[in-house]
Amino acid sequence: MTHTGARGLADDVAVLQTTGEQLVLTTDTMVEGVHYRLEDPPETVGWKLAAVNLSDLAAKGAMPRACLLNYMLSGNREWDERFLKGLDQALEQFSMPLVGGDTVAQVDGARRTLALTAIGAVPAGQPIVDRSSAKAGDILCVGGPVGDAGAGLALLVSGERAPEALISAYQRPMPQVALGQRVAPLAHAMMDVSDGLLLDASRMAEASGIGIEIDTVPLSDTLRALSGCSVEARLSAASAGDDYVLLAAIPASDSLPEGLTPIGRCSARSGLSLRLDGVPIPLPTRLGWMHG
Amino acid sequence: MTHTGARGLADDVAVLQTTGEQLVLTTDTMVEGVHYRLEDPPETVGWKLAAVNLSDLAAKGAMPRACLLNYMLSGNREWDERFLKGLDQALEQFSMPLVGGDTVAQVDGARRTLALTAIGAVPAGQPIVDRSSAKAGDILCVGGPVGDAGAGLALLVSGERAPEALISAYQRPMPQVALGQRVAPLAHAMMDVSDGLLLDASRMAEASGIGIEIDTVPLSDTLRALSGCSVEARLSAASAGDDYVLLAAIPASDSLPEGLTPIGRCSARSGLSLRLDGVPIPLPTRLGWMHG
Repeated sequence: MTHTGARGLADDVAVLQTTGEQLVLTTDTMVEGVHYRLEDPPETVGWKLAAVNLSDLAAKGAMPRACLLNYMLSGNREWDERFLKGLDQALEQFSMPLVGGDTVAQVDGARRTLALTAIGAVPAGQPIVDRSSAKAGDILCVGGPVGDAGAGLALLVSGERAPEALISAYQRPMPQVALGQRVAPLAHAMMDVSDGLLLDASRMAEASGIGIEIDTVPLSDTLRALSGCSVEARLSAASAGDDYVLLAAIPASDSLPEGLTPIGRCSARSGLSLRLDGVPIPLPTRLGWMHG
Repeated sequence: MTHTGARGLADDVAVLQTTGEQLVLTTDTMVEGVHYRLEDPPETVGWKLAAVNLSDLAAKGAMPRACLLNYMLSGNREWDERFLKGLDQALEQFSMPLVGGDTVAQVDGARRTLALTAIGAVPAGQPIVDRSSAKAGDILCVGGPVGDAGAGLALLVSGERAPEALISAYQRPMPQVALGQRVAPLAHAMMDVSDGLLLDASRMAEASGIGIEIDTVPLSDTLRALSGCSVEARLSAASAGDDYVLLAAIPASDSLPEGLTPIGRCSARSGLSLRLDGVPIPLPTRLGWMHG
């Protein structure tokens, strides 16, 4: 999906007309062997590069406007074409035209390094929601179940047969762009869960100077069928990365927007705490995934 | 030079308020050993990454507004700090705040890959100048002498002692941001010379569907003192890369803005031709530098 803003292939820049809106800018880099597996189908690498950036826009309630790609030719034309096909599918689906970029040649066995810079728009005057303004008393919600991507990755790495839904959650995450636009005007705080629910919730608590008590870890039917819903299975799901669901703190007085699942509340006492089936659960040492 | 738009280090995005201006977007990637030498001082790599993007903005007459960095930690803290110092110097000098970015860890001996995405503003209603609208009869101009950077690089590679001005031209190019803003409203066509004057002029001729006749290759005093001004020396300067001076086609009826040097004219006959000291000169096989 290219765009007239790209001014053809011959020009060095893209142009974006503005009308007083607020632009949200984000960029993410993916390195072969770190942010994706060499064995991942190239289409899914392209999809995921778009999706992780779109998820950052979603967390601001921004409407995707444009993106620029920094692409490293792989020396493998089929890989390049399949990567671009997957990228293009995501850009089409979420209406984010590719308006420009830069291509460099990969050199002798270097790892592919791919970056996308995404630009979204938030209407003039709408406060830009962030992770630092959750208030004691807010309802903490997520945009969907967690742990599918982490379980999919673990199965892929171990070589075990993995249900399609879990592989897809890892390789083709669905950024919650429409949900983000609905929730942003209501939420006190919002972010996307990319490094594990517990880790990202603890970041929201710390940035907001409040406490967060989680009492539910929503699992998908597929994950529940595979792993059950023991405390251990739920802790594992809540500390796995790559979910790309939204995490929002909603004032208790508001009715919850469709698409959000309540998982706990914000409190005046600082720090993160977890209670499952009514029983306090000690937090695991590792709350989530620290990306390199 | 960071900025309130970066919303602190804890957030995932930057925000840019707009007021109806036109935004110009560009991105450039630099790969170790391809776009810079491993031996180059890290400060100059940071400077140059900013400069090459700023030069793209300059060619549109855009005022720098913001940039985002995709940084690969080198595993060498001193290198990282010196790189960021050089980047910061350029961003300060050209008033382009760094509002966001992404950092990844370099892995086992991978080459550093560094990218910057720059955003500039052009006033509402001002046509965005490009390389494709030069007209027969226009005066072709450059923003400064060419060949210094190429000569500096050649001397560095050969290990010979190089005059400071030539090394500096290669390692710390000066994007012509202010000149670009002055010239853009007048020029029929404009671009920056990054791959060699002859190659970039031939691209302007082709994109505009006109011919270009060059009759002067301006050399700096330093280069002239080093290499003389034989036809060979001038051909070498006109086919070397990394000049980052502006190339503009100005209507003959206008007086030339200060800072531009006329080097030829646009004609109805297509293609590029060169005449030095009144004598037609066959074009070299290699018109310039093709970046990887």
